[in-house]
Amino acid sequence: MPRVAVVMGSDSDLVVMKKAGAVLERFGIDYEMRILSAHREPEEFVAWAKGAEDRGVEVIVAGAGMAAHLPGMCAALFPLPVIGVPMHTNSLGGRDSLYSIVQMPTGVPVATVAINGGANAALLAVKILAVSDPSLRKKLKDYLIEMKENVIQKDQKLQEEINHGL
Amino acid sequence: MPRVAVVMGSDSDLVVMKKAGAVLERFGIDYEMRILSAHREPEEFVAWAKGAEDRGVEVIVAGAGMAAHLPGMCAALFPLPVIGVPMHTNSLGGRDSLYSIVQMPTGVPVATVAINGGANAALLAVKILAVSDPSLRKKLKDYLIEMKENVIQKDQKLQEEINHGL
Amino acid sequence: MPRVAVVMGSDSDLVVMKKAGAVLERFGIDYEMRILSAHREPEEFVAWAKGAEDRGVEVIVAGAGMAAHLPGMCAALFPLPVIGVPMHTNSLGGRDSLYSIVQMPTGVPVATVAINGGANAALLAVKILAVSDPSLRKKLKDYLIEMKENVIQKDQKLQEEINHGL
Amino acid sequence: MPRVAVVMGSDSDLVVMKKAGAVLERFGIDYEMRILSAHREPEEFVAWAKGAEDRGVEVIVAGAGMAAHLPGMCAALFPLPVIGVPMHTNSLGGRDSLYSIVQMPTGVPVATVAINGGANAALLAVKILAVSDPSLRKKLKDYLIEMKENVIQKDQKLQEEINHGL
Amino acid sequence: MPRVAVVMGSDSDLVVMKKAGAVLERFGIDYEMRILSAHREPEEFVAWAKGAEDRGVEVIVAGAGMAAHLPGMCAALFPLPVIGVPMHTNSLGGRDSLYSIVQMPTGVPVATVAINGGANAALLAVKILAVSDPSLRKKLKDYLIEMKENVIQKDQKLQEEINHGL
Amino acid sequence: MPRVAVVMGSDSDLVVMKKAGAVLERFGIDYEMRILSAHREPEEFVAWAKGAEDRGVEVIVAGAGMAAHLPGMCAALFPLPVIGVPMHTNSLGGRDSLYSIVQMPTGVPVATVAINGGANAALLAVKILAVSDPSLRKKLKDYLIEMKENVIQKDQKLQEEINHGL
Amino acid sequence: MPRVAVVMGSDSDLVVMKKAGAVLERFGIDYEMRILSAHREPEEFVAWAKGAEDRGVEVIVAGAGMAAHLPGMCAALFPLPVIGVPMHTNSLGGRDSLYSIVQMPTGVPVATVAINGGANAALLAVKILAVSDPSLRKKLKDYLIEMKENVIQKDQKLQEEINHGL
Amino acid sequence: MPRVAVVMGSDSDLVVMKKAGAVLERFGIDYEMRILSAHREPEEFVAWAKGAEDRGVEVIVAGAGMAAHLPGMCAALFPLPVIGVPMHTNSLGGRDSLYSIVQMPTGVPVATVAINGGANAALLAVKILAVSDPSLRKKLKDYLIEMKENVIQKDQKLQEEINHGL
Repeated sequence: MPRVAVVMGSDSDLVVMKKAGAVLERFGIDYEMRILSAHREPEEFVAWAKGAEDRGVEVIVAGAGMAAHLPGMCAALFPLPVIGVPMHTNSLGGRDSLYSIVQMPTGVPVATVAINGGANAALLAVKILAVSDPSLRKKLKDYLIEMKENVIQKDQKLQEEINHGL
Repeated sequence: MPRVAVVMGSDSDLVVMKKAGAVLERFGIDYEMRILSAHREPEEFVAWAKGAEDRGVEVIVAGAGMAAHLPGMCAALFPLPVIGVPMHTNSLGGRDSLYSIVQMPTGVPVATVAINGGANAALLAVKILAVSDPSLRKKLKDYLIEMKENVIQKDQKLQEEINHGL
Repeated sequence: MPRVAVVMGSDSDLVVMKKAGAVLERFGIDYEMRILSAHREPEEFVAWAKGAEDRGVEVIVAGAGMAAHLPGMCAALFPLPVIGVPMHTNSLGGRDSLYSIVQMPTGVPVATVAINGGANAALLAVKILAVSDPSLRKKLKDYLIEMKENVIQKDQKLQEEINHGL
Repeated sequence: MPRVAVVMGSDSDLVVMKKAGAVLERFGIDYEMRILSAHREPEEFVAWAKGAEDRGVEVIVAGAGMAAHLPGMCAALFPLPVIGVPMHTNSLGGRDSLYSIVQMPTGVPVATVAINGGANAALLAVKILAVSDPSLRKKLKDYLIEMKENVIQKDQKLQEEINHGL
Repeated sequence: MPRVAVVMGSDSDLVVMKKAGAVLERFGIDYEMRILSAHREPEEFVAWAKGAEDRGVEVIVAGAGMAAHLPGMCAALFPLPVIGVPMHTNSLGGRDSLYSIVQMPTGVPVATVAINGGANAALLAVKILAVSDPSLRKKLKDYLIEMKENVIQKDQKLQEEINHGL
Repeated sequence: MPRVAVVMGSDSDLVVMKKAGAVLERFGIDYEMRILSAHREPEEFVAWAKGAEDRGVEVIVAGAGMAAHLPGMCAALFPLPVIGVPMHTNSLGGRDSLYSIVQMPTGVPVATVAINGGANAALLAVKILAVSDPSLRKKLKDYLIEMKENVIQKDQKLQEEINHGL
Repeated sequence: MPRVAVVMGSDSDLVVMKKAGAVLERFGIDYEMRILSAHREPEEFVAWAKGAEDRGVEVIVAGAGMAAHLPGMCAALFPLPVIGVPMHTNSLGGRDSLYSIVQMPTGVPVATVAINGGANAALLAVKILAVSDPSLRKKLKDYLIEMKENVIQKDQKLQEEINHGL
Repeated sequence: MPRVAVVMGSDSDLVVMKKAGAVLERFGIDYEMRILSAHREPEEFVAWAKGAEDRGVEVIVAGAGMAAHLPGMCAALFPLPVIGVPMHTNSLGGRDSLYSIVQMPTGVPVATVAINGGANAALLAVKILAVSDPSLRKKLKDYLIEMKENVIQKDQKLQEEINHGL
């Protein structure tokens, strides 16, 4: 039974949203990934979003571009946290997606991450689940240590380059 | 039976949307005006938007601010023209509302007018109805003449001021 | 006799505006497509726009970029609905085109669609004509069903990929 | 023992952040509210943020304006969810705060809400806690019903006004 | 016979455009000032703009706001220099006016000045006329000296304040 | 003796500014073209700009990018018209160049054209010179006719394509 | 003999730039404060900026708004550090000033601070002088402690309010 | 012992920041170059920034992109000048980096240079050191002369091209 639902409005969002899937897999969290359009199949979408809680979903991660309504409509229909991923757009660079997702009215928040931030959206979902899950919290700290070590290695590589004349 | 439905997400949009009502009244077009939130009462909203066509509505004029999903969700649920009015916002000046309304994906257009353009949205609705309504087309041309005369009067007033030393 | 006129200011807009033509053809709507510049041949343009109604045109779809005056000047000269398509621009991403088209003064609305939204502009024209045309309304609903099925197929393809390990 | 920490960089943020406090109180969630500057007292801030988990804090809600580093630095030091509230600014309208909070690098997400969205930030914290707290989930649903009824009342008031000639 | 025509689309532009008039008067240049709308009275506007050269107009100064088409349409119809003044707007701060005026296509330039720059537009007209008018060139240099002395006086006032402890 | 000076701050602006040269050549106007930096050789630049009037220059066309000070500093030192060409920039799309050139203070106007508008800047210079030069005015009108015919040809080509099924 | 020169292009900048003066006085640093316009008195300005080093000036703090050329022209003429203060502007919020100051070409940097950041500009000047001045470095650290204590007091005031029910 | 520390948050910033290193080397200034993340290794970062003064660092040059906290956090921890380099970003062009770096609160300035301005950041550091270092000041003036001659050569090349028909 999926604890996280990853949803996007178009298959053009797949490249970004698969990064969310990869992070969830790394943390061993069961998830579903769906292409569902609030605009093109509104009734199917409403049924899906309304039923998510009963299917055991605890967090929705929704990616959308342009007039990105998908995350906000998820937040209107699902009572638990919804995380929005604004997609980069060719003309407005993703400002359209960002504003459409983050500027939600009082009562219906969407937890917005960076433009194209699919991986961070999933990591935020992990942090939300880790609030009540000590083993996930442990994995999260391991991840943070790994991330730190990765930076340290890059710095060491740079120092070596400098020592050999970069 | 209303031919136009004027809808907004919040009573803070009333000042702008009442201008739409005033234009429709001037042209003698029957309309309904509703406050309905796609975010706060999604199911009531979906039922209303889906039923609009059967109630005889031919055009929806929808005003919304910030992450303005109302016009786009109307367009997802109502097969005939939806006109969107982006509301001015304090922080982003209405760019958020504008982008959320105008940047709709292929298949689900919203006819977007200027920020706070409530009167123009209704006038666009009149033009749409006038396509198949010769008497409305006649009224529309009278309106355009009146508008022109209004500019001419302002210019005449300026010329008089100039002649008397402005 | 064309019911819709598709007009653009430059042949560089053809790629986007041909999408409008394709949608109109799909719905069997007769249209003309013209390159006409409000800036470079203002008198020819004025004559064309003023004569459109008498030629039977019911909706104008006008595409323009940068200081995009074409849609607004159509709206000044043609009493029925004008739909504006803001072209993407290299320097300002189409914000210049969008603002020049959507921010029209009271009395002269332009129904603005997304940046490069040629297909949606034509679909909006179809919706306008469908207000008084039941057979077109039927075709429109078929189109919406097709659009929905297209999303469902993409989702099914994704589910298959997931089942086989994406 | 506070489950949520509400923190801001300056007392000029209090008007917005007290709205977060009011929402948490409505849901009966214990919280602390602090003025702490990542820029002016970095060591005190680091000590506070690092110690939050041990003090039982499960979610941090951080408000900041301009080059708003506070939420991002909380996310660097606290392993559980950090919610960021971008403050409106006079010159850039809050775009500076918004970009500084939402555009976090991979590995360190901040759950960003709307500009000046103090109430929504707290509501998002409630949703996060409700993931594992059935009684809070119940309260959340009561809140959503109340919110819906509030819109319905506004619409009824408008209908009465219309019936009496608005 | 006016050498300069000052034109604006709406009487709301008068405050800014009267500054243009004041500068022209200071330099003793004959001018006409008109309210004329390219959108609301396009035929009257076209007739006026086309006739300007024959009436002896050498430069047009055109002010407009929002989807500011007036300067560009003047440039389409009048072969000599057209100077555009973008008006400040409440929602977009005048960016809409600025982009609509400055981003003209090749072949139809508008000499654009700062947002609300009515005085500078007239001064630019004076400079254009001074190219072939030695006495105007002399007056222009006197103006520049006066402007310089004005700054020097402000600095002297500041130095006095500082000497007396500001 | 050059009547127009074309100046730019960097050889990276040459591609755009050579278009200005080409237009001036088409109209048979003598011009000089210089690379001169207000930032990197301020004294040489000041001497050049101050001496321009005495060398017979009647209009300066100045192109610059980023914090584009060159046109404004020309306007501070040269009493006759200065035309500014904002260069496209990679990060801000030319908004930085545009604002730095167009937003000049009262008393020191720069006639600003579109981003990368080298050809239009020269055409504006031609229009300025044509104010007092009947033969240039004649050439300008020929140019406008040619421009119009070019659009007509493009439209004819499109009509042929349509007739043969585009 | 002043070590720092505070300069601005207009007396409208005085409110912001006097904050720079106040900070310099607090640190006991001798400074001059001038109103000097690069646009309106370019030769006087150039003489002043070129002579600054010989007069003993070690840092220039320059404030300017709109097409803010003053800081950049100081940087072109003065070999030591120039700090730029972008002024808030009504139409573009100071983006015009900011871009005109910060986007300097390679070789001519301006150390840019926040919009209206007069106090921070002076503090940056103090930090520059403190590099080689141990007693100033000591004063700077006292200032930082004071700043920190000021935040702590605000937090204590808030805690008292909370304890008494805020 | 390094007088300047060049630091960046990610190895993706190396291309830009190596330009800073090249400038420092040209002026014979000892520097260290580090990859250090305020977000991913906050404690290591704090220790490094706090220890910089004791290690003899006189200026920090910090490059960062997106929600670019690194320069501001350096300024919070290091009492002497911090220079910030905003990195270009794909979606927002570097506006996010720029605002996050330049819009610092009173008391904690960051000397911000142009987007991707690595070379200028180092040159600003050189200017800061040159305040108290006459030999460095001499080298700086040689650099300025070289820069000027480079422009003069480019102009000469252009003049030759023109003479031979460009």
